[in-house]
Amino acid sequence: MGSTPDGPIWHGAMRERNLAILLRAIATNQPVSRAQLASLTGLAKTTVSNLVTVLADAGIVRDGQLLHEGERGRPGVAVTINSDAAAGLGLEINVKYLAACVLDLGRRVRYRHMVALDNRGRAPEAVVASLAQIVDSAKAAVAEQGLSIAGAVVAVPGVLNWAGTVHAPNLGWSEVPIASLLSEVVPPLRLPIELDNEANLAALGELWFGLGPEAGDFVHVSGETGIGSGIVVDRQVFRGAHGFAGELGHVTVEPEGSVCACGGRGCLEGIAGQEAILRAAGLGEAARGDGSGDPRPAMAVLVEQLQVGDPAALAAVERAGRALGLAVSGAAKLLDPDTVVLGGIFAPLGLWVRPVVEEELRRSALHGSSPRVAVSPVAAESAVLGAAGKVIELVHADPALLLR
Amino acid sequence: MGSTPDGPIWHGAMRERNLAILLRAIATNQPVSRAQLASLTGLAKTTVSNLVTVLADAGIVRDGQLLHEGERGRPGVAVTINSDAAAGLGLEINVKYLAACVLDLGRRVRYRHMVALDNRGRAPEAVVASLAQIVDSAKAAVAEQGLSIAGAVVAVPGVLNWAGTVHAPNLGWSEVPIASLLSEVVPPLRLPIELDNEANLAALGELWFGLGPEAGDFVHVSGETGIGSGIVVDRQVFRGAHGFAGELGHVTVEPEGSVCACGGRGCLEGIAGQEAILRAAGLGEAARGDGSGDPRPAMAVLVEQLQVGDPAALAAVERAGRALGLAVSGAAKLLDPDTVVLGGIFAPLGLWVRPVVEEELRRSALHGSSPRVAVSPVAAESAVLGAAGKVIELVHADPALLLR
Repeated sequence: MGSTPDGPIWHGAMRERNLAILLRAIATNQPVSRAQLASLTGLAKTTVSNLVTVLADAGIVRDGQLLHEGERGRPGVAVTINSDAAAGLGLEINVKYLAACVLDLGRRVRYRHMVALDNRGRAPEAVVASLAQIVDSAKAAVAEQGLSIAGAVVAVPGVLNWAGTVHAPNLGWSEVPIASLLSEVVPPLRLPIELDNEANLAALGELWFGLGPEAGDFVHVSGETGIGSGIVVDRQVFRGAHGFAGELGHVTVEPEGSVCACGGRGCLEGIAGQEAILRAAGLGEAARGDGSGDPRPAMAVLVEQLQVGDPAALAAVERAGRALGLAVSGAAKLLDPDTVVLGGIFAPLGLWVRPVVEEELRRSALHGSSPRVAVSPVAAESAVLGAAGKVIELVHADPALLLR
Repeated sequence: MGSTPDGPIWHGAMRERNLAILLRAIATNQPVSRAQLASLTGLAKTTVSNLVTVLADAGIVRDGQLLHEGERGRPGVAVTINSDAAAGLGLEINVKYLAACVLDLGRRVRYRHMVALDNRGRAPEAVVASLAQIVDSAKAAVAEQGLSIAGAVVAVPGVLNWAGTVHAPNLGWSEVPIASLLSEVVPPLRLPIELDNEANLAALGELWFGLGPEAGDFVHVSGETGIGSGIVVDRQVFRGAHGFAGELGHVTVEPEGSVCACGGRGCLEGIAGQEAILRAAGLGEAARGDGSGDPRPAMAVLVEQLQVGDPAALAAVERAGRALGLAVSGAAKLLDPDTVVLGGIFAPLGLWVRPVVEEELRRSALHGSSPRVAVSPVAAESAVLGAAGKVIELVHADPALLLR
């Protein structure tokens, strides 16, 4: 009400909606002719033609490849997604590393970068300065491929509030104004930089680049220093009333266990988090004496020890698997997902952790079936892929963002 | 695609959509004139007039009350919801009773009925036969008020599958073909009889007739013999991938506890369910020796003993509250609700249970805040109210159901 269907506001919204419909049809059916697009979308041929021109001028689609429709007839002109113009940058601030990933509009990975850094001891300003360098490197590297970064999403291992601050206990960050720190050192892109929780982005990374829709509704468990989960329902992340949903790492699994930094007792993270597993397996940083802060060697050593049947390693991973199974069983009873996806460190440990989690789920299957347990094929990369994918998703959902 | 905006399918769908829009506007703004309705809905005045006539002919709205718009001008004719024609019947099969409730289209309770019955020992056919008698009584009682029951929803304390069978361990029912049993003894109504889980309907009863929208996104805990929960997100019940979401009663709260019938260990239901609390308080059926199967006297005795500070009663309810608090804390971390609502037996026990649950939630509040804990004002009636409310909701969402 207020504006009429012929008024400019309505018209603009319609045009934006039609641009998005058209772009989805191109992405799904490329290469595709204007005539096919008109038939796929129900839009008039002149509307299709006008909007394809708008998208092509903005570098979002490419126009011109010859297309033979069927055996006879003259060739049409095909429209395809332009994979050589705008790109999305995913960034990840992890406790133990920084990572970046660039996707083109066709969702292909065009650049990836990871640098091991123990960010726990570092000032947020220093971490953000490192991230700014990574952005510069990414920009330069993809510019050589003809790509220009249109937007970025940053995955953070903590909870964001609406004011742009992040609370990340595993980094030692309490209400750090991450948004303003980033805006001071990262030059503006065409789209505003967005922040999101790593567990949510890891779940989206799994949806878009890992198991995908075959996982149905799923709970994606991402574990490193902390343990988080992302809940995907109808291909959307379930975020809760305040954006805090999915805190699997602080579900109590040992009611008589030790007190966690969160105030709870026997939290999953304290038993099945990376440090807890390594410590229980005799592979903690102190035991190894390298003080490197780099987790991968230790995780690699753990996997080796599991493969040769080291009793301490097997016991540590078994206990972690039982605790994870208990927490995941509770989550499955509340959420009734199709699949539980083991991501993060639980992916390389999948051979040992998955059977234990499956057993816990099956033992108390309420309705004759329990969710499938799958190991993430993207694992440690899922958050940064999800972050980059979210930029591409934003553009696909509203291509007009790149026209403004 | 396929049908044009002028084709009959499209036209029918538009008309049904407009009927629903109009009925919502009438329900929210009644008494309301046709002119006001045209302005509220954006529909043309002639469309409003035609559709009001359709709704009035079907007995859904009433037309004719004089309405003065402002001080001057001639009086308009007001449209109101017709509270004296179609009605919705809610039915509940509980382990310990059967209940019915009739709501008119204005959502006022016009009839309620409850009969204590220990349904655990009874054949499903006998339970359904009792329910059919209750339907007959309800029909007769509301007919005297000029109401005719248009549809019914039945709350069952178990899990339904798509084939119309119910699995209700607390009733001793395994895959009982409840839909066909009902259709054999309950004469058809204008709308097909629907079945739903009592925990989901109790949450809807809370939303529509209890705390309402002020609860925001909430988890409604309903406990009697079993413990269930209904998760409400954006005013909808969250059902999960297979309709089994919300099984709070089988979340493990004592990992070393005894094995539950479900196969799990230390399930909440075994510690905080009605029978478990009464047993721990020395008020189990065996201890009382009445074998009546009627829970209310025992619950009333329990409340009395709590009020006089009986140590066994206080300890039993404290332990149940701790277990409930632990399960609810886990749920809150996964779901991030605004409110946790204590329903069913936890409502009369609210004075003692609520502080314990609040303490558990606060102890491990992750982000500086934990959900509010509220006691249900509708408690034991929430499921049957939700069932009747669902019929009214179906009619409001698609009034054309009553025109076919």
